[in-house]
Amino acid sequence: MLDFYYSPGSCALASHILLEEVGADYRSHRIDFSQNQQQSADYLKLNPKGRVPALSTEHGILTETPAILVYLAETHERSDLILKEDHFKFARLQAFNSYLCATVHVAHAHKGRGHRWASDPAAIKSMQAHVPISMSLCFDYLENEAIAGPWVMGETFSVADPYLYTICRWASADGVDISRLLKVKTHMEMMTQRPATLAALKAERLEP
Amino acid sequence: MLDFYYSPGSCALASHILLEEVGADYRSHRIDFSQNQQQSADYLKLNPKGRVPALSTEHGILTETPAILVYLAETHERSDLILKEDHFKFARLQAFNSYLCATVHVAHAHKGRGHRWASDPAAIKSMQAHVPISMSLCFDYLENEAIAGPWVMGETFSVADPYLYTICRWASADGVDISRLLKVKTHMEMMTQRPATLAALKAERLEP
Repeated sequence: MLDFYYSPGSCALASHILLEEVGADYRSHRIDFSQNQQQSADYLKLNPKGRVPALSTEHGILTETPAILVYLAETHERSDLILKEDHFKFARLQAFNSYLCATVHVAHAHKGRGHRWASDPAAIKSMQAHVPISMSLCFDYLENEAIAGPWVMGETFSVADPYLYTICRWASADGVDISRLLKVKTHMEMMTQRPATLAALKAERLEP
Repeated sequence: MLDFYYSPGSCALASHILLEEVGADYRSHRIDFSQNQQQSADYLKLNPKGRVPALSTEHGILTETPAILVYLAETHERSDLILKEDHFKFARLQAFNSYLCATVHVAHAHKGRGHRWASDPAAIKSMQAHVPISMSLCFDYLENEAIAGPWVMGETFSVADPYLYTICRWASADGVDISRLLKVKTHMEMMTQRPATLAALKAERLEP
C-alpha cells in the first residue's frame, strides 16, 4: 500500500493521475496549504522539503514528480508508459519531464512563490508581472518543439502526458493564450477524456 | 560518435565528467556564452533551447542534465551508475537529480539569469541579493537530508555525483559557507581525486 500526499491542483496532480492510470493500491492524503500543513512537524518528518507530491512506499519516501512518475510505471510493470525498450526515447521523455520541472514549473512558481527568490515585496511583484512572458515562452517551446503530438511522445501515451496536462491547467491563469496552441489544446482535450484523469480530478475536487 | 556541447563551468560539466567516466567516444564543442554563441542560428537549429548541455547522438539531440546522465549510463552498460537493479534506489537517484535541476540550479540562476523571471533591474538586483539565502537553504538540505555519504547514494558512486560536484563548485561564490558542511566538503575532495573529473576540468580549462 502506497501513501500519497498532495495539494489540490498542484503539480502532485500528475502523480495522482498516474496512480489511477496504473491501478495502484494507494491511499491519498490531502495537505492543506491554506493551513500551512506542509510545514507541520508531522509532515516535515515525512518529507523535510515541506512540499508535495510525496509518495510513501515500503522502502521509504519519494519526492519530485519526474522520479515518482517513472517509479510508478516501473513498479507496476508498465514499461510502455516510459518507452523503456529504447534508451533514446526514454531519455527524450526524461528531458521533457526535466524541462517541465526545472523551467515551466519554475516560471509558474514566480507568481505565487516569489519569496523563494527575493525578499523585497516590489521584486516579488515584478516577478508576478513577468509570469505571462516567461510562461508564454515556455508554451511556445512546448508547442513548436517538444510535443510530438497527439501525445507528448507521439502516438504512445506516457508518464509525460499527465505531467504536461497538470501544468497546462495553470497556463491560462498565468497569461498564456492557449487558443493559438493547437497541440496543447488537443492534448488537454484528450487528457480530460481519460477515466484516470477524471478520477484524480474528482478525488482532488477539481473540475476538468 | 557523440557530439557534446558545453560552456565551461556550467551545469554541462556534470555530463562532461560522466562522458569521461564511461569512456564515451565523443567530440566536445565549446559554446562561448561571452559571444552569445548559444543564441547563434546554427546552435539554435541544433538545440532550440539555446542552452547547454546538448548531446548530439545518432538518434537525435538530447538536452537536460538528468536525462543525459542516465542515457550515458544506459548506453555504456553502466547500470551500476544508476542503481538500476532496484526501482526504489533508481527513483531516489532521480529525485536527487530533479532537486538539483529544479531547485538548486534554479536558486543559483537567480544570480546571473534574473532576466528570465523579471524585467525590472531593481528586482533583478533583489534576486541576486537573495542567492546566498536560497542557496544556503538548499545546501543545508543536501547536507542534512539528501547526501547519504560519502557519495550521494552511499557507498556506490553514481551519476548524481558529478552533478552534485558541478553545483558544489558554484556554492562558495554564491555565498554558501561550505566549511560547515562535512558531507559536501568530503564529496568535493573525493570527486577531485577521480581521473574523469580531472580530464573534464582540463578540457574545460578549469582548476579543480
